[in-house]
Amino acid sequence: GHVPGFAARVAECNEITEADLEAYVPLIVAGKAVGLMQPSFADELVRHGDGVFAMDPDAAQTVEQRTAAAANVMAALRDAGVITGWRDELFPVNESYGEPPVMLVERAAASLLGIRAYGVHVNGYTTAPDGTLRLWVARRSMTKPTWPGKLDHLVAGGLPHGVAPGECVVKECGEEASVPVELAKTATPVGVITYNANYLGCCKRDVLFCYDLELPADFDPVAADGEVESFELFDIPRLMDTVSSTDEFKTNCAVVIIDFLVRHGYLSPEEPGYAALVKSLRQ
Amino acid sequence: GHVPGFAARVAECNEITEADLEAYVPLIVAGKAVGLMQPSFADELVRHGDGVFAMDPDAAQTVEQRTAAAANVMAALRDAGVITGWRDELFPVNESYGEPPVMLVERAAASLLGIRAYGVHVNGYTTAPDGTLRLWVARRSMTKPTWPGKLDHLVAGGLPHGVAPGECVVKECGEEASVPVELAKTATPVGVITYNANYLGCCKRDVLFCYDLELPADFDPVAADGEVESFELFDIPRLMDTVSSTDEFKTNCAVVIIDFLVRHGYLSPEEPGYAALVKSLRQ
Repeated sequence: GHVPGFAARVAECNEITEADLEAYVPLIVAGKAVGLMQPSFADELVRHGDGVFAMDPDAAQTVEQRTAAAANVMAALRDAGVITGWRDELFPVNESYGEPPVMLVERAAASLLGIRAYGVHVNGYTTAPDGTLRLWVARRSMTKPTWPGKLDHLVAGGLPHGVAPGECVVKECGEEASVPVELAKTATPVGVITYNANYLGCCKRDVLFCYDLELPADFDPVAADGEVESFELFDIPRLMDTVSSTDEFKTNCAVVIIDFLVRHGYLSPEEPGYAALVKSLRQ
Repeated sequence: GHVPGFAARVAECNEITEADLEAYVPLIVAGKAVGLMQPSFADELVRHGDGVFAMDPDAAQTVEQRTAAAANVMAALRDAGVITGWRDELFPVNESYGEPPVMLVERAAASLLGIRAYGVHVNGYTTAPDGTLRLWVARRSMTKPTWPGKLDHLVAGGLPHGVAPGECVVKECGEEASVPVELAKTATPVGVITYNANYLGCCKRDVLFCYDLELPADFDPVAADGEVESFELFDIPRLMDTVSSTDEFKTNCAVVIIDFLVRHGYLSPEEPGYAALVKSLRQ
């Protein structure tokens, strides 16, 4: 069966285990647990923070005040060489999706602070006349800085501040795969995947909003923005084999595809490990 | 929106919270954490156990030996009036579904030991010509000992030892709703719901295998075994209102229906609390 291979993919996306999590230092802002930091970074934060962290425990400050206070500390950490790859782009910080941010911080600090990031993943599929499904798979450009050449969803991307998930899906469908707006709008939200990935020792706690988009058999996606090298239709057996026994898929895409296979009945409770696998998709 | 009402239903099915769980005493058999007991029951177990619990830490015994040792202790607890409602029926004990049991115990002790129990729930639905879905809802007989008169799935039931989930679905579909075997076999496994319910102070940790079964528009389920009083088709707005703002549904059915609504796109990530709600379906 494919379950052991699938479980291995989920584990790769959750290198930070439950036990590891206890070693990270929570970032508490205005009484909310919004981040999870390596102890070494937490020490740097305190050293350069001049008493700013732990921040605003009685939630008396405004978002602007916290953002300004954080900006000073982040600049000091940049000057000290602790934060690299400065982007000059603010990133919202909240406890869970849909809550107003407690503050905004420089994007380059996001992973060091271990704050939640949100994204959308679209399973673009067709239904063959015999009822079997095929999934459109993108191959990422070799020139992409992250995961070059890996297999990916029809469309996937980070959720920018202030953009609703459904709106982001439509925009990225057009940009990444030339899906017309009216067709992209039929994408159906089908759930959420969460994981605790290890990114250079940081705890990357992503929340992915998953969508299913059924495409007409005669629709061919076309790469529009240079991020995708090519698209290809995978039938379910090939999809299952590729996910379970290779590392060709970008890790988090493998997890979203496993969720797709579970929801569409391609895995069975009779297979050992099924219940644990399904539960592991939301960590 | 319906999300706050849905979140309340999920919380009702998870009265034993994460924090509460720490007050329970794990039951470790052959090195595996197979149960979770109230401290008062754990005390009784030790008092009547004559050193049998914690049981077989080096896993040297056979399942039969452990079952026999447990049977003596359970009989003593029955005679002391601690275990009531003796059934004379053995129940398998394992850490997760699909694993061989470490032992079998009297069914009346299952909730006191806090061992996992498994069930199947079938969302029986029809698709109207305009593409909208309707869910078949059963009303439980007023004479049922548990949850009399509450709303239920088309078919749901506990998974007996040695019966595969898919097999159980087909059998119960016939018994409870007169669904023919060939139609019942098209039920699709779509995931797993877990919760930590409070049953007379015990931690009831159920694992429900969920199935979707699309039924022809002209098929009417017929109650066959006296457990169901009547069946009725609910359209999605009525279904969502009933789940979110009443307690008419048996609590765990409400949670399985929320999962159905999430998977079929009737909830949206734009609604506050969506991500937390979806994650809460597997506790």
